[in-house]
Amino acid sequence: MRKFVSDKSCRKLLHRSFQNLTQKLQHHNHQHKAPPSSVSQPRFLSSSSMAPSSSSNPSAPSVTLDNINPKTTGVHCFLFTWLKSFLIYVCVSASGFVLKFSKCEYAVRGEIVTLAQRLQQELQVKPGSLPFDEILYCNIGNPQSLGQQPITFFREVLSLCDHPSILDKSETQGLFSADAIERAWQILDQIPGRATGAYSHSQGIKGLRDTIAAGIAARDGFPADPNDIFLTDGASPAVHMMMQLLIRSEKDGILCPIPQYPLYSASIDLHGGTLVPYYLMKQQDGDWKSLRLRSNWRLPSPKASQLVALVVINPGNPTGQVLGEKNQREIVEFCRKEGLVLLADEVYQENVYVPEKTFHSFKKVSRSMGYGEADICLVSFQSVSKGYYGECGKRGGYMEITGFSPEVREQIYKVASVNLCSNISGQILASLVMSPPKVGDESYDSYCGEKEGILSSLARRAKTLEDALNNLEGVSCNKAEGAMYLFPRIELPLKAIKAAEAVNSAPDAFYCRRLLNETGIVVVPGSGFGQVPGTWHFRCTILPQEDKIPAVVSRLTDFHKRFMDEFRG
Amino acid sequence: MRKFVSDKSCRKLLHRSFQNLTQKLQHHNHQHKAPPSSVSQPRFLSSSSMAPSSSSNPSAPSVTLDNINPKTTGVHCFLFTWLKSFLIYVCVSASGFVLKFSKCEYAVRGEIVTLAQRLQQELQVKPGSLPFDEILYCNIGNPQSLGQQPITFFREVLSLCDHPSILDKSETQGLFSADAIERAWQILDQIPGRATGAYSHSQGIKGLRDTIAAGIAARDGFPADPNDIFLTDGASPAVHMMMQLLIRSEKDGILCPIPQYPLYSASIDLHGGTLVPYYLMKQQDGDWKSLRLRSNWRLPSPKASQLVALVVINPGNPTGQVLGEKNQREIVEFCRKEGLVLLADEVYQENVYVPEKTFHSFKKVSRSMGYGEADICLVSFQSVSKGYYGECGKRGGYMEITGFSPEVREQIYKVASVNLCSNISGQILASLVMSPPKVGDESYDSYCGEKEGILSSLARRAKTLEDALNNLEGVSCNKAEGAMYLFPRIELPLKAIKAAEAVNSAPDAFYCRRLLNETGIVVVPGSGFGQVPGTWHFRCTILPQEDKIPAVVSRLTDFHKRFMDEFRG
Repeated sequence: MRKFVSDKSCRKLLHRSFQNLTQKLQHHNHQHKAPPSSVSQPRFLSSSSMAPSSSSNPSAPSVTLDNINPKTTGVHCFLFTWLKSFLIYVCVSASGFVLKFSKCEYAVRGEIVTLAQRLQQELQVKPGSLPFDEILYCNIGNPQSLGQQPITFFREVLSLCDHPSILDKSETQGLFSADAIERAWQILDQIPGRATGAYSHSQGIKGLRDTIAAGIAARDGFPADPNDIFLTDGASPAVHMMMQLLIRSEKDGILCPIPQYPLYSASIDLHGGTLVPYYLMKQQDGDWKSLRLRSNWRLPSPKASQLVALVVINPGNPTGQVLGEKNQREIVEFCRKEGLVLLADEVYQENVYVPEKTFHSFKKVSRSMGYGEADICLVSFQSVSKGYYGECGKRGGYMEITGFSPEVREQIYKVASVNLCSNISGQILASLVMSPPKVGDESYDSYCGEKEGILSSLARRAKTLEDALNNLEGVSCNKAEGAMYLFPRIELPLKAIKAAEAVNSAPDAFYCRRLLNETGIVVVPGSGFGQVPGTWHFRCTILPQEDKIPAVVSRLTDFHKRFMDEFRG
Repeated sequence: MRKFVSDKSCRKLLHRSFQNLTQKLQHHNHQHKAPPSSVSQPRFLSSSSMAPSSSSNPSAPSVTLDNINPKTTGVHCFLFTWLKSFLIYVCVSASGFVLKFSKCEYAVRGEIVTLAQRLQQELQVKPGSLPFDEILYCNIGNPQSLGQQPITFFREVLSLCDHPSILDKSETQGLFSADAIERAWQILDQIPGRATGAYSHSQGIKGLRDTIAAGIAARDGFPADPNDIFLTDGASPAVHMMMQLLIRSEKDGILCPIPQYPLYSASIDLHGGTLVPYYLMKQQDGDWKSLRLRSNWRLPSPKASQLVALVVINPGNPTGQVLGEKNQREIVEFCRKEGLVLLADEVYQENVYVPEKTFHSFKKVSRSMGYGEADICLVSFQSVSKGYYGECGKRGGYMEITGFSPEVREQIYKVASVNLCSNISGQILASLVMSPPKVGDESYDSYCGEKEGILSSLARRAKTLEDALNNLEGVSCNKAEGAMYLFPRIELPLKAIKAAEAVNSAPDAFYCRRLLNETGIVVVPGSGFGQVPGTWHFRCTILPQEDKIPAVVSRLTDFHKRFMDEFRG
């Protein structure tokens, strides 16, 4: 068994730490009395049991955070951040471009969302006790949690596929649209034995992949192969799958945009690779669209000795940019020349809010440049969680992989097989979002109405928030072109930065915490996504329902003025 | 960029391998002509593009299987096996107990299921061309793929939760049972904002965890805490999550039963740990119930220098045993004394077919021994894929963790957070299986009828197959106590073993391939699960519908007789 307690000093140390923990955890109760026999302490035991008597067994493998997998303690918190919020220390080496995720600031991790939850409870228990009457969550890309309604047609089909025995009953005609019933039959016929409760092929049900491939081909104007589609439980498992495949050691570098969605940093760290940052540049017009990519890339990190892939998020999270086609071509050319796998996060492909911009998939761009299977390895991630549908809880998504050799594809298939298959409802929904109702279908008009209603409302919300942010002193906000976020930069007064330092907080986290405490608005500090060192941002979703937006704007504006008045000059 | 081609000889080698691949893959077509510019070859490109001209760029990172993550190429295939089938070379060291998964036999991997799929296509194209008229799949624990019907109440609730807007319509009363409607309302009320399309808490929706905890408490007679429940997309992600947490390096050994469900070997390898086998012993009565556990365990592997956890699967996969309570107590005592985390796979808890056996959870057993949170770290895995419900496609499941310190629990939470949350339909279903209709509910009688119908039929099928197998010359089959499998041992004649060797096949794979070719019956060779070296088994599910069982028995019996006649003496 593990012999963690190898010498006396070490044992003393452990002992002290347990006593310390015991004091902290006096509230921890045991439901059962331990039997009187000599007890050796399991590694992960509740610390309250770590009494000195346990040392009677010198080989006791008493284990805490220090001896679980360090990748889980130090690294996962990047995504955790996304849910909660905490600080990452960012530093840049002399040669530029190094981002070291050297320390997760445990003291502040989760502080802001935890604080929000505490304040929400306070409001419930003691209404009127705080300077606001509700928490306004602008921290998470989770539209339906804020009141966005699901698309009726999609839910009708899911509901029918979950309980197919009602399909041929007369009452069903009154409850469900005719095309939803027809689509449910079509989907059932694509599932062997109509068994929606069976494991599917590890890539997903073939008929659904056919539908998705047809949807991709219609979108891009270039063919798509159902055998290139891997259906997954949302996009996250697909990203993990590719990182697992591509990363062999920390010597393998993955180019990631900064700021980035923390899934990437988390997954790269989890799989033992090295994140090599490239900074998204704010253009003069306020966009984040340009990527600083250099063909003779100098490897910036002493760890990564080779680059294997480049991540691009378009439309961008957290920056909300929609890349122009010229910029996309540069990225494709760069990856092709450098032999990098292009990992394209395209989950916000339906979320474009400005008429002058259009979403182009990287596959479409590379094919239109004349590059085919032989020229570039390309992975496109899509999810049912975003778009106008926002079905986060359904955990549906897919990746389309092209350009890989059959041998490598077989390895990807094996990785996919380890979890058997993704959930069938998510698979069905992924096929629906790539093949919604068409002209002439009974649901078409209502579907279009719902879709346009959501997207135009999101566009209005984005513009209102963008304008409000740009009206604030020292705040410059990118144009809300797409995705679900704004990522304004805040020029914080020196006095505020010092005040943050005094409480051992990053300045942007300090600002966000104050914002929450005074207004109930929850946003995520920019340090959770990475930012050019010395600059400060926060990410704010555009997702609160429209009737809440005026409250967000007025509370934020009033707060910001007070904050600046307090710390200015 | 990666510089894989560091010297001339290496480049020649790579070059040869590409030429070789090119020959093999002449059917591979390119849809687009590569542009005329100088092209460097991405690592994963279709090999047909690897023409000598590509070497014009000496820094071209031409990469194949050799430089993707070796953990994915060598290891994942263990679970892949479960889907397909292949050989694992098993060897035992002088000191006993070493199982080295040293080589995946790629030549045979997937052969049997691939063969089955090919034969099925042949039957479709040319009916009557084979000595059988249908493929009888006995290889996978996927009940609904073989015609098992879902439990109506469960599907009604899922359907209503997917499309809640029909809940208060009059037609709904005619289509759905009253208690399903009521339950759907209850569940919606447990979801913040009734948003079934929102990400949930990373552990799963609190109200559903309350229901599950209550179900566990009712099952065990000991309290369960909803904060100990982590809802997951089936049990597999939960197993991966724990392995990720527990394993730091190959020095960390995980005790696993042999034979085992290959998820465990796959997950241990994936996370870089070492599988330390303990052999399940066949008792005189044919059971596999006894575990050879020794308190002064000698570490058998030169790699693993410490044991961290013990996996137990009860009811057993692939062995079908249901452990007796005495045996379970020994396991608990062993883990407690040795400070091992007890990872209890209890996904077959509803699948017990013999009156003399009852399922007891390891938590119940440990609590009844007087061991509480302070004494043992315990993880129980449950899934909606098994039981009488068999809802594999829904990807629902949970793990209940007890005995871990708050600090370690927080790390588990972080690991869970990386994929945001499990799918909500799976979460709802997990709550339903732990809280089915009760006496007095409208659905109660029909629910009981469906449940008993499935379980009693499974019991009959298990007994019929067990008897049939035991009637075969040289075959001894364990008692079909539980789960969904039989794992008969076959004493193969020396001549058959030699014939297998002659075609470079493991003897059990040889037998299974012959069985498939001659009868259409698909079973998995024992070597895919691990077995005592020199013994041969196969795993056969009890899942074909009852009207197919006579065909399975008669075809298997006839085949076995022919096979033995051919190779005997």
